[in-house]
Amino acid sequence: MATTVRAAVCLCLWLFACQVRGSHIPQEMNRTIQSLLQHYKISNKERFDGKPVFPNEQLSGKMETKLVFMGGVLDSYEKLFGHMLKQLPTPSPQIAGSNAQPGSAVTAASSDPSNAGSAAGRDVRSQLKYILRKVQELKRHRYQEQEKLLQGLQTLRHIKMDDHIVQSKALWQLPQLYEEASSLPEIKMQRRRRRRRQTKAKGHQRG
Amino acid sequence: MATTVRAAVCLCLWLFACQVRGSHIPQEMNRTIQSLLQHYKISNKERFDGKPVFPNEQLSGKMETKLVFMGGVLDSYEKLFGHMLKQLPTPSPQIAGSNAQPGSAVTAASSDPSNAGSAAGRDVRSQLKYILRKVQELKRHRYQEQEKLLQGLQTLRHIKMDDHIVQSKALWQLPQLYEEASSLPEIKMQRRRRRRRQTKAKGHQRG
Repeated sequence: MATTVRAAVCLCLWLFACQVRGSHIPQEMNRTIQSLLQHYKISNKERFDGKPVFPNEQLSGKMETKLVFMGGVLDSYEKLFGHMLKQLPTPSPQIAGSNAQPGSAVTAASSDPSNAGSAAGRDVRSQLKYILRKVQELKRHRYQEQEKLLQGLQTLRHIKMDDHIVQSKALWQLPQLYEEASSLPEIKMQRRRRRRRQTKAKGHQRG
Repeated sequence: MATTVRAAVCLCLWLFACQVRGSHIPQEMNRTIQSLLQHYKISNKERFDGKPVFPNEQLSGKMETKLVFMGGVLDSYEKLFGHMLKQLPTPSPQIAGSNAQPGSAVTAASSDPSNAGSAAGRDVRSQLKYILRKVQELKRHRYQEQEKLLQGLQTLRHIKMDDHIVQSKALWQLPQLYEEASSLPEIKMQRRRRRRRQTKAKGHQRG
């Protein structure tokens, strides 16, 4: 009972917060998520177990750090929706042809009880595709730089650590990279100091 | 022949560049890497195949992006040296006890021909450990923030994409995260504009 109340309060607070802040989420997207949550039902005990999928700690640091992490979160959502789509039952030909809007209740095909299961699956499919598209659009328009960095980090994970040639080539690159890794934080500090000096100097010039 | 000349020229250029720039690399570290390259020998054709282990493109963007990628490079070196240490033959007890300095030619134990192989292995081990320590120190002292971010991104890779509970919890988190992901780039732009305005205002006040 307590968890149900807590869930209801959370939902109300979130809807209220969205309205107050002037939400960036289109209403259609909001409705679609709520509809999908009916399909992907879990108990409140499972939902509020204190282990969110995406931890909040990473979203409290510096702006640049937050942006990179958020790029990673959007990436994960993209993969997750891919998995969820794959898990859905394959749509039958006559249903696959239909073009229902995401967020709309249930498609016409569901009026035939024998089709109800697949129709619901088809509806979930179109809803998931819609949400996936929204995430991809946001990523493409606002997180291009972070995306490139994440791809770069991805390539590092595929280094063949046990390969003798790779080991030798990496050793060969080490002096240059160690040099750069040592100097980068210093260059950052110097730039910051220079900017501060320039700001002061501009003030004096105008004075 | 051409590749040998190219290798020699590269090495000379790099040593020259280090001297000119006032290198951040301790001489001891430089010597140790050169000594290790003797052990991890490959042909020049293999070394200069146009596929460096760590691509340079990622080190030409914005400072913050470069720092995160460099954090990833240091991370990879740490793992790579771990792998290289594991691949070495296990040191025999009497040799394991000795304490030769990294970078020193060959330890006393190698005067006995039967021990030469293990002694060389032991020497390579201490050299690798020394290089590993230098990389770890740099990471710990200058790349703390990047390290935290990389750990955060690491947790994203372990999300159980096929788990129904995870899928539902992620859907539940989506409105809040989508909202945040949409607003973060805007907040960054607003902050930049505000800083510019403040700089101008300071100039006018002083005027």
